[in-house]
Amino acid sequence: MIQLPATFPADQLDDFCVQVFRHYGVPGPDAKLAAGVLNLADVRGIDSHGVARLKTYVDMFKLGRINPKPNIRIIRDKKSVATVDGDNGLGLVVGPAANAIAIAKAREFGSGWVSVCNTNHYGIASYYSLEALKHEMIGWSMTNSTKLVAPLWGAERMLGTNPISIAFPGLTNPPIVIDLATSAAAYGKIEIAKRKGDAVPKGWIIDQRGKMSTAPDDMIDGGALLPLGSDRERGGHKGYALSAMVDILTAVLSGANWGPFAPPFALRQEIPARSVGKGIGHFFGAMEIDGFMDPTAFKKRIDEWIAVFRNTKPANAAMPVLIPGDPEHQEESIRRKNGVPLMESVVRDLSIIAGETGIPFIGA
Amino acid sequence: MIQLPATFPADQLDDFCVQVFRHYGVPGPDAKLAAGVLNLADVRGIDSHGVARLKTYVDMFKLGRINPKPNIRIIRDKKSVATVDGDNGLGLVVGPAANAIAIAKAREFGSGWVSVCNTNHYGIASYYSLEALKHEMIGWSMTNSTKLVAPLWGAERMLGTNPISIAFPGLTNPPIVIDLATSAAAYGKIEIAKRKGDAVPKGWIIDQRGKMSTAPDDMIDGGALLPLGSDRERGGHKGYALSAMVDILTAVLSGANWGPFAPPFALRQEIPARSVGKGIGHFFGAMEIDGFMDPTAFKKRIDEWIAVFRNTKPANAAMPVLIPGDPEHQEESIRRKNGVPLMESVVRDLSIIAGETGIPFIGA
Repeated sequence: MIQLPATFPADQLDDFCVQVFRHYGVPGPDAKLAAGVLNLADVRGIDSHGVARLKTYVDMFKLGRINPKPNIRIIRDKKSVATVDGDNGLGLVVGPAANAIAIAKAREFGSGWVSVCNTNHYGIASYYSLEALKHEMIGWSMTNSTKLVAPLWGAERMLGTNPISIAFPGLTNPPIVIDLATSAAAYGKIEIAKRKGDAVPKGWIIDQRGKMSTAPDDMIDGGALLPLGSDRERGGHKGYALSAMVDILTAVLSGANWGPFAPPFALRQEIPARSVGKGIGHFFGAMEIDGFMDPTAFKKRIDEWIAVFRNTKPANAAMPVLIPGDPEHQEESIRRKNGVPLMESVVRDLSIIAGETGIPFIGA
Repeated sequence: MIQLPATFPADQLDDFCVQVFRHYGVPGPDAKLAAGVLNLADVRGIDSHGVARLKTYVDMFKLGRINPKPNIRIIRDKKSVATVDGDNGLGLVVGPAANAIAIAKAREFGSGWVSVCNTNHYGIASYYSLEALKHEMIGWSMTNSTKLVAPLWGAERMLGTNPISIAFPGLTNPPIVIDLATSAAAYGKIEIAKRKGDAVPKGWIIDQRGKMSTAPDDMIDGGALLPLGSDRERGGHKGYALSAMVDILTAVLSGANWGPFAPPFALRQEIPARSVGKGIGHFFGAMEIDGFMDPTAFKKRIDEWIAVFRNTKPANAAMPVLIPGDPEHQEESIRRKNGVPLMESVVRDLSIIAGETGIPFIGA
């Protein structure tokens, strides 16, 4: 057995994903788009949403649960707004297509807003908000997802981790990139704690009776994540409301499955007994900066905002105040140069895919 | 001295405010609008934002800090988006005018988005999102405000409590009304705890060195509120990012004062040494439901969403899961019938205003 390298060049991972998607029937340009979404997650250090997910997408293709050649179309629209049906295509293909519609509408009408049904996992929310920046726009992106989170005072999973992303361009600074799940913590962190045998902080999870817990198994075995804010005193009703907002804009408004009816993406997750629409939902927005303010003047103001907030008096001099997007930007500059580090389990998954498809994987 | 009634009919409070605003030079139709914003806060039980604030508005008029007859105008626009200059008018007048522009744009272009500078305190955020519902639209509203909140890891006030509101109409149910400050707790709660000599929950405040505290004085004497999520572990970076989003959409994009430079509204608050724009900022959005989905079909889906979430298995059978807007809706049905209860200190303020202006106040 050969020694596996610790890191992989981003381009080679990208190429591998393109070929795998093509192998499962995705047309070349769509395969490139889809791989690009995963790759951005990998280079920005959002490891849970990059090639680590490729195996799940492949599983779905093998089961015929994703349409590799969707007819993505506008089913209703009025100037700056539209609803798009993703025809059960890969979320990584439907997402970029629907987001491009929002951007085209923004070019014509000053802003564009697209709610999407009949789609599935679309990767990192910030891929889409960052796309808008290439067109001198402010970008918005949201998606609903499989249930994991309890509404405040609830004792069962009713909402996904439903992320919100918005990005604003700087002039000399990298953009401000907001990308947050509306839960107090990510599900991945509960799994990591379980593997390590650690307790999780109070405020992350409840057990199946709705009681706060610090034992990962209490959440995993029929409990739930808590919304951002955790409990009533610290604003758990606000995290619940934000998650509800995402659920409604992405899924109620588009005709997708909302709340507890959002279909799962991973095979191990339970399929809801009831369907209230088609697939899951996304929501994209783009606003042309020029419609509000001279774009250069706006970017200068963003640069000034960044400078002022970076100079906030810190609680601890060793931990200065960050700008949203800082950690990902820093990671991107390292990984574009040094490559993407992958966990052994991810390399193993990619090697299995290589074996099944005959597509050579550099580490295999 | 006569016995003061505990509650006051909403209409009489509204009339009093109309007359007071007119006394200070606000034209009749604007005075009616402004009073209506305060009145909605009073009937929905958001006591901090109703007639309790009238004295502060009056103080600002007496000091000549608000323009009673503003020339509110669009200074830049492109179809569905615009920037509005409020000409230093009362926020309660500028807000409804700018929101009406967003609604008119939505009627023409499917959606309308207006960023506003040169304005001040606009009342409750949900007044504006609820206005859009009268036009078969989904309404959005945000505002920045005087600094009270530290960014995560900061040890000083840099952001306002920067609320976000969005409202969705039901068919047979009252609307889902989301209206949340992006801080962990409201400043008013710190003041109440101080008066009572109580400690506040951990996660609400820091002292002037940036250390978490439970002593109200630590926040009041140069400390700060924490963002929603409180600390890094429980997602304080997310509350900070949401507050930053509001600050940028309302103030950076409009040409208003952002972050720590937002001018104060109450006289006791410090005036920032530096100005980076005009007044504070608001952001309004309206989206025509018909551009996405048949409005009746959408409202039926909202009704179903409400029914399903109300039936969430509760952690405690005596405390069922609420729908965002429930507490305010319940309060509204009580107060429209029984009147608005006012604290003695508020009645005293209104009586002083009555004495100064010669406008009769029912309780005086």
